[in-house]
Amino acid sequence: MNKKNLAILMRARMRAAANQEPLPQQQLSQPAHPKSPPHQDNADENNRTTPERVTLKDVKEWMQASISIPPGKLESVDANLEEFSQGYLTLDQEGRWELLLALARDYDVNRARVRDLMRQYLSLEPHGATGDQEPAELEDESVLAAFYRTERNLRDALKPMYAVFFERLNERPGGLKLLAILRADLLSVLVKENIPSLRALDSYLKEKLITWLSPAALELHQITWDDSASLLEKIVAYEAVHPIRNLLDLKRRLSVGRRCFGYLHPAIPGEPLIFIEVALLKDVAKSIQEVLWDDPPIPECEATCALFYSISSTQPGLAGINLGKFLIKRVIDLLRRDMPHITTYATLSPIPGYMQWLLSKLASQIKLSKSETDNMNDMSEKGSISAFRENILLPEEERMILNSAMEHGAGKSAIEIMQDLLTASEWTKSDHLLAVLKPPLMRLCASCRYLLKEKKRGKALDPVANFHLQNGAMIDRINWMADQSEKGINQSGGIMVNYVYRLDKIDENARSYFSTGHIHGSLPSSVS
Amino acid sequence: MNKKNLAILMRARMRAAANQEPLPQQQLSQPAHPKSPPHQDNADENNRTTPERVTLKDVKEWMQASISIPPGKLESVDANLEEFSQGYLTLDQEGRWELLLALARDYDVNRARVRDLMRQYLSLEPHGATGDQEPAELEDESVLAAFYRTERNLRDALKPMYAVFFERLNERPGGLKLLAILRADLLSVLVKENIPSLRALDSYLKEKLITWLSPAALELHQITWDDSASLLEKIVAYEAVHPIRNLLDLKRRLSVGRRCFGYLHPAIPGEPLIFIEVALLKDVAKSIQEVLWDDPPIPECEATCALFYSISSTQPGLAGINLGKFLIKRVIDLLRRDMPHITTYATLSPIPGYMQWLLSKLASQIKLSKSETDNMNDMSEKGSISAFRENILLPEEERMILNSAMEHGAGKSAIEIMQDLLTASEWTKSDHLLAVLKPPLMRLCASCRYLLKEKKRGKALDPVANFHLQNGAMIDRINWMADQSEKGINQSGGIMVNYVYRLDKIDENARSYFSTGHIHGSLPSSVS
Repeated sequence: MNKKNLAILMRARMRAAANQEPLPQQQLSQPAHPKSPPHQDNADENNRTTPERVTLKDVKEWMQASISIPPGKLESVDANLEEFSQGYLTLDQEGRWELLLALARDYDVNRARVRDLMRQYLSLEPHGATGDQEPAELEDESVLAAFYRTERNLRDALKPMYAVFFERLNERPGGLKLLAILRADLLSVLVKENIPSLRALDSYLKEKLITWLSPAALELHQITWDDSASLLEKIVAYEAVHPIRNLLDLKRRLSVGRRCFGYLHPAIPGEPLIFIEVALLKDVAKSIQEVLWDDPPIPECEATCALFYSISSTQPGLAGINLGKFLIKRVIDLLRRDMPHITTYATLSPIPGYMQWLLSKLASQIKLSKSETDNMNDMSEKGSISAFRENILLPEEERMILNSAMEHGAGKSAIEIMQDLLTASEWTKSDHLLAVLKPPLMRLCASCRYLLKEKKRGKALDPVANFHLQNGAMIDRINWMADQSEKGINQSGGIMVNYVYRLDKIDENARSYFSTGHIHGSLPSSVS
Repeated sequence: MNKKNLAILMRARMRAAANQEPLPQQQLSQPAHPKSPPHQDNADENNRTTPERVTLKDVKEWMQASISIPPGKLESVDANLEEFSQGYLTLDQEGRWELLLALARDYDVNRARVRDLMRQYLSLEPHGATGDQEPAELEDESVLAAFYRTERNLRDALKPMYAVFFERLNERPGGLKLLAILRADLLSVLVKENIPSLRALDSYLKEKLITWLSPAALELHQITWDDSASLLEKIVAYEAVHPIRNLLDLKRRLSVGRRCFGYLHPAIPGEPLIFIEVALLKDVAKSIQEVLWDDPPIPECEATCALFYSISSTQPGLAGINLGKFLIKRVIDLLRRDMPHITTYATLSPIPGYMQWLLSKLASQIKLSKSETDNMNDMSEKGSISAFRENILLPEEERMILNSAMEHGAGKSAIEIMQDLLTASEWTKSDHLLAVLKPPLMRLCASCRYLLKEKKRGKALDPVANFHLQNGAMIDRINWMADQSEKGINQSGGIMVNYVYRLDKIDENARSYFSTGHIHGSLPSSVS
């Protein structure tokens, strides 16, 4: 290949190609489309000898056989699990859901056995059924032996019967990956419908996955340009925050001044479960453009800041297992050891929920103020509505928006004009509108509202904020026009945030966020 | 280094060196000697800043702190676990035992909470406390939700409080290794004393280790001469069956016609947990000498037999976890795929318990026959003693032994002469004595007795036999003078056995051995 051809290859757009021909892994990790007929996403058809037409009934029978075969007959378990693993992937989404429901309901806890053991246990109490005295205080070890035995039996009896199915799957090559797919399917049905038995199945599977994916079993791997194409292809396919445009872009993210680390599990070789991208910089970056486009990078020995600018999980079925927390911790430990001149560990993070929150806020205020106008003369109702009405905009911000609106829409309120502007997204092309919208967008994002105050069950509403705050980071600064990509504008009006991991405060921050939901940040002084 | 020096290096004895300067890993994996003062085996003294003098009280406090710190304060847990990990290794065996007993007793199950939850659970029964009807049959998912919730809480409550200690240790670098050391220490105290709370601790820890060391988390690694010296050093140190004599011996075991596979876990890098050595041969070998000394090896494409001639576990604390079974299975799968011309999978195995069994058998027969002679005239007792007396030797064997004894000891019985010969071990140097002893030794080993019939709790008495039979192998042949090393003569009179893994029978054999203890073998026709 001559130099010109190489240059073309390196610059060729990657995501388009990746989208046209999704990787088998993508297919595997996402349930088939609900409406697609069976077999449509059977990527294994040219592998092995899959039966001509697999039905839900077949797959269910393989599942049942894999559970009910006794330990001695493991060869037949293997054969059934093999059939099941291939068959499951050929089912459409509804078939998978039905199967999971059968698993949850038919292979539940054996409650009769649990009750028998409980009665047995309660009868062990040294002072009869009413005494709550702690038997462990008894010096007599032989009394304790009966407790230990019954407790062990009870632990065993409280395992649902599907536990053995998960365990047997996990022991097979490819089993852990299939379990992650099962869980992704479970999560997708639970979004639609809250069925207690499926929720119990999910909670049990999640617990098992947490054990099997304990940080001790994960290998921290630095991903470099020397890695295999098949691994790098996965980085391109799964990079979820800032899509990789072409080979040049990928190479830059793996070369001087950059780091990329992934967690690999021996059972899922060549495919990181999660990976993080790091830029080594002089200062905490204010925009993703400077991270992705700065050239040339500074010499690494001059870096004082490690900036985490992207973290992507490759397995939707591992949601909630928080591998990211351990990954960040290990990467910080590693960088601290290797690069003592780095003193700041920060992120440049998207604010994925901001625009959605703001637009719904604007819409509800418009609605409230409409009904207020309609009921102008009905003094009795006015008070009650006003209680829900907020002044989203400061008077100064309102005035500037109304002034700018001359050309756009007369007779509308400032909030309505703001709504129009933000939904059209033309505003980013006008310096004037940028200047008008910057003050309210920045103010509402951070110091007063979205990031610092909006909560869901006591935690930050924004999922990325919740992730980093939970890990012990602090909000450090929000940055205007920090992500000018279409996605960045749509998600957060182009605003990005720096979270900072202060090593001496991680522990304290995480604790106070856990217990009180308090968010640490020093925003008012550091908006830029 | 010139060629001559290299030759000297390659032939230098290895075990001697390894014995003089044990690897730090050996120290870590074996509890300190009971009588040694604290600090004697502290291999970490030049690492980090260990306190001047660590007491049992210190280590206990670090352990308690690691357990009782709440999840938010993980940094302090880390610090305490670090101190604990270093401190524990400096304790002598009695200190470790005391610590483990404190862990077992003070951080047991919270029985008051368990009882509360049980009463709550039993009150959930839809038909009152007496009905044993299965509530899962109820279609009402909302009734089930209460069961699921209480079952989850019960599972949680039935976890002993020390569970969190194991989990937190497992998440740390080096934690899994330390857990294996804790378990080795536990096993060593349980050999001496059967304390129920320690047995419960061991059983819980074993269960956790089985989960964490699930085959899915283990990497099958082919160990070759290209591996690092630090890894190969461990192979030399831990090879427990046929000690590696020198570098040449090691190199041969990793070169053409040979394979060595190990299971590696990401948390214990560079140190296989277990490894197996394989020879690719034309026929099933009849002696270990031909495996270790045959030169040159046959071309691999001519091999039809894969002979497993050594399997060694490196972690005494992982006893009973049966990694060997999975290792053999995976190695067979791999060889089947890569070398379809191999049709026989067999072992050449020691019979470690044979001589010990035979000598104790001889001793008890001598004792019985002595009291028989003493009571010759007391006819009333004779019958009862004779019931315990067996004819260990056939008349022909007895005659040959008595004939050979002319020079050795007159006036003794054949059994006494046999005992004298076997304990002195001079017999292996005399062709005549070898010929005399071969028939009874071979017969008692296999077809009639030791391997096929001697049982302990329904399983083969010989531990190696039990291991392979459990995995589904069959006894195929026993071989005379198959291991002429001192260890081989002492353990089994030099006899070795071939177990064969017949792929179409593994499943069936394992099942029948599990359920009935029946041992499959075709020995009488194949003694050689």
